[in-house]
Amino acid sequence: MSVTVDLEKRLGKEKVIRDPDILRIYARDPTLLEYQLPLAVVYAESVNDVVEVVKFAIENKLYITPVFHSTSLSGNAATTAQKTIVLSSEKMNRILEVSEVDWLATVEPGIRIDEFNLELMRYGLQWPVDPASSKTASVGGTIINGGGGMRGAKYGPASHWVLGLEAVIGTGEIIRVGCRTVKCREGYDILHLFVGSEGTLGIITKAMLRLAPLPESFVGVVAQFEDVVSLAKAVVESRRRRLWLLVAEFMDDDSSEFVGLERKYTLWLGIDATKGSEDVMLTRLREVIDKVGGKISAEARDWGTFFKLLGPRRLLYPASVKKAIEQYGGDALVLIGDVAVPFSKLPEALQEMKQTAKDYGIPTIFGGHVGDGNIHPILWFNKSDEIQKKKVAELYERFDEIALRHEGTISAEHGIGLHKKEFLKKTYEAKNSAAVLRIFREIKRIFDPYGIFNPGKIFD
Amino acid sequence: MSVTVDLEKRLGKEKVIRDPDILRIYARDPTLLEYQLPLAVVYAESVNDVVEVVKFAIENKLYITPVFHSTSLSGNAATTAQKTIVLSSEKMNRILEVSEVDWLATVEPGIRIDEFNLELMRYGLQWPVDPASSKTASVGGTIINGGGGMRGAKYGPASHWVLGLEAVIGTGEIIRVGCRTVKCREGYDILHLFVGSEGTLGIITKAMLRLAPLPESFVGVVAQFEDVVSLAKAVVESRRRRLWLLVAEFMDDDSSEFVGLERKYTLWLGIDATKGSEDVMLTRLREVIDKVGGKISAEARDWGTFFKLLGPRRLLYPASVKKAIEQYGGDALVLIGDVAVPFSKLPEALQEMKQTAKDYGIPTIFGGHVGDGNIHPILWFNKSDEIQKKKVAELYERFDEIALRHEGTISAEHGIGLHKKEFLKKTYEAKNSAAVLRIFREIKRIFDPYGIFNPGKIFD
Repeated sequence: MSVTVDLEKRLGKEKVIRDPDILRIYARDPTLLEYQLPLAVVYAESVNDVVEVVKFAIENKLYITPVFHSTSLSGNAATTAQKTIVLSSEKMNRILEVSEVDWLATVEPGIRIDEFNLELMRYGLQWPVDPASSKTASVGGTIINGGGGMRGAKYGPASHWVLGLEAVIGTGEIIRVGCRTVKCREGYDILHLFVGSEGTLGIITKAMLRLAPLPESFVGVVAQFEDVVSLAKAVVESRRRRLWLLVAEFMDDDSSEFVGLERKYTLWLGIDATKGSEDVMLTRLREVIDKVGGKISAEARDWGTFFKLLGPRRLLYPASVKKAIEQYGGDALVLIGDVAVPFSKLPEALQEMKQTAKDYGIPTIFGGHVGDGNIHPILWFNKSDEIQKKKVAELYERFDEIALRHEGTISAEHGIGLHKKEFLKKTYEAKNSAAVLRIFREIKRIFDPYGIFNPGKIFD
Repeated sequence: MSVTVDLEKRLGKEKVIRDPDILRIYARDPTLLEYQLPLAVVYAESVNDVVEVVKFAIENKLYITPVFHSTSLSGNAATTAQKTIVLSSEKMNRILEVSEVDWLATVEPGIRIDEFNLELMRYGLQWPVDPASSKTASVGGTIINGGGGMRGAKYGPASHWVLGLEAVIGTGEIIRVGCRTVKCREGYDILHLFVGSEGTLGIITKAMLRLAPLPESFVGVVAQFEDVVSLAKAVVESRRRRLWLLVAEFMDDDSSEFVGLERKYTLWLGIDATKGSEDVMLTRLREVIDKVGGKISAEARDWGTFFKLLGPRRLLYPASVKKAIEQYGGDALVLIGDVAVPFSKLPEALQEMKQTAKDYGIPTIFGGHVGDGNIHPILWFNKSDEIQKKKVAELYERFDEIALRHEGTISAEHGIGLHKKEFLKKTYEAKNSAAVLRIFREIKRIFDPYGIFNPGKIFD
């Protein structure tokens, strides 16, 4: 205990939480899994606080789990080692600057995405990284986890929307990388090494973000399909027709029903337009849906309307957690997969996953960002039921296998964390590229020579 | 000499060039500077050839300068060390695959960008990385140098358009990273570490590229301005109006005249549109030009027409080389700067650079990608004139200083190479982030433990 008293002395009492009830909250993640209780939670308020915590960890041989709003889904922010301080950046949440000519903003990393975008709307701008959890998720967490989300089909993942970072590395040094321009060639691209590093290389303390103008016009449709193959074919067809969709989201029959929609396969397609071209673009979306035998149930002629229509899609994960608790109470556990396959493989891969889940008899629903080929199978079970637990572990791996077999990836946006470590090895074996894992370890040592950041993750 | 005979034995005679006349060509770069004569030039034809050359270099303690079509402009591909093999990937130039649903292509790195895009046009697709030298420059060279170009204003730099890489690192091992989907979270982002690494980390042998559909419609204008400030303000104004330009290129009065245009400041503005919105979009461009006092001399209602109008802009660099040779004959040397400043700083930064060049009395012309804030000052001089040479070196540095003072960068797309090494140090000093240079050296050691790749570059 004395080490946390020392920490209090160093940082000030109000920044260090030792209350076991609060520590227990930080030992849990959204998948309902419980991990190691940390020694303390520190609410950093400045880069200097972060430097102090890192130095303290070095001196006292402690670990640090960096967290923002703890919405990550692969165990990325889980505390697994004893003697760990959880370093939370929740309180570093200010917008420091918005430039309406340069289309950039500088923020502290703890700001929530929706809150940030609400402010940007006043400028007609957006940060188009849009995980389903955007209401809760922070900008910093989304960067460090390499998040993607609902507008990635056109805009790409977080890595395309970060211009610069300030971070504290494992020596206690502060580094600053990146430029106020999109083109920036200042040596090796350390910035993108940090994006998606899952808190293993350092603590982000400031982010400079690239912004895009809000589309001046937007049209979208919601359509229902009888089966998953026709739904997937709608995406393939839109690619064939060179329609660069901005949003293409889906939910299967079960999950559509859970969130109060018709029990069908639901597809949301949206595309940006310029004033005067709305009718043309809407007609194109209709033609795609028609061609593959879907039925349009709603249309939107602006982003606001479409955003509301998308509402149920954002409930995919929370609805499954609710369902799991209804079914298994306090024994419920939820696992969410995060595979992606190339568009051309979507129809067969989706069907195969759906069938495999049925064969295993494990409650599983499917949804995700089909506009990126990104599928989230969500399964839940009773953690006290050993037989079911074994089946679940197997099924979860089967999804990864199916993705790899269809030239896909085992993680599109949730990262490797704890849950995907074994499959990361298989991924690089499949690519005949095993040296990469050694390189990862060596990169980690550069930034974190004492091994204090987020131990046990990705490859560790 | 015997070492090159050994190399011939290992690879086959036809792949190893020892003819001094050819070696001399490879000792020169487009800036007319001459460097060290290499021992030999190897034309690799496969990844196995590359592995063999790397192993041979390790065994014989040789260096390797990786080159593609040698269009880089900061001395990035210059041979500066004795005992160097130039490893050329010019002959590895096949398109291995184009997927019209997945919007991706896999290529060997030596393929030229224009040739590649010509093939993609058949599919209604594009690889939108577009350096002015696209006719000659290779895809691989553009990736390894982190190139940008003329369509970067909207599409961003090369790093946004690479999905996967195969490369041979300095141990002789082959690594493969990346996914067939844009979202890809398979550990640390080594892929983007390679993009812009200037041949110091390994040799790219295959690239999987993200493609975009060709805009279905496009409008553009060419406009003339009396001064550089009004021209820059046109870009600022378009940003204020949230016009996400696809192309915004400029040339100053002198360079406009050199390439046969009216002696004014010339601006090219282009934007993609959807069918039916062409008039609306053209009106918007006209309004921007009007507002800041420019005069439109030509309009385009499709990409083909605009592409032709852009022709003179692509001559900016070759025209200055021609001019330099006219003026100083065999004693001519050309230096090209590559700074960028945030859009909001463009008017003052451009004016200051223009004035500074005038004060120094060195022939300098200005042009570049204003849609990225990217300015290329080009200056030429007589390399036998010591006084002029000293002035040029000073002036070149002044441009970097001006860029840094306006919150810009010393390299937007040409990289650090040889010419910007000192200013890279200043850059990180200015950011109070000196640890980054140590990190660069340590990263280099991971991929190239024997230090064989492209010595003396970036930070070395």
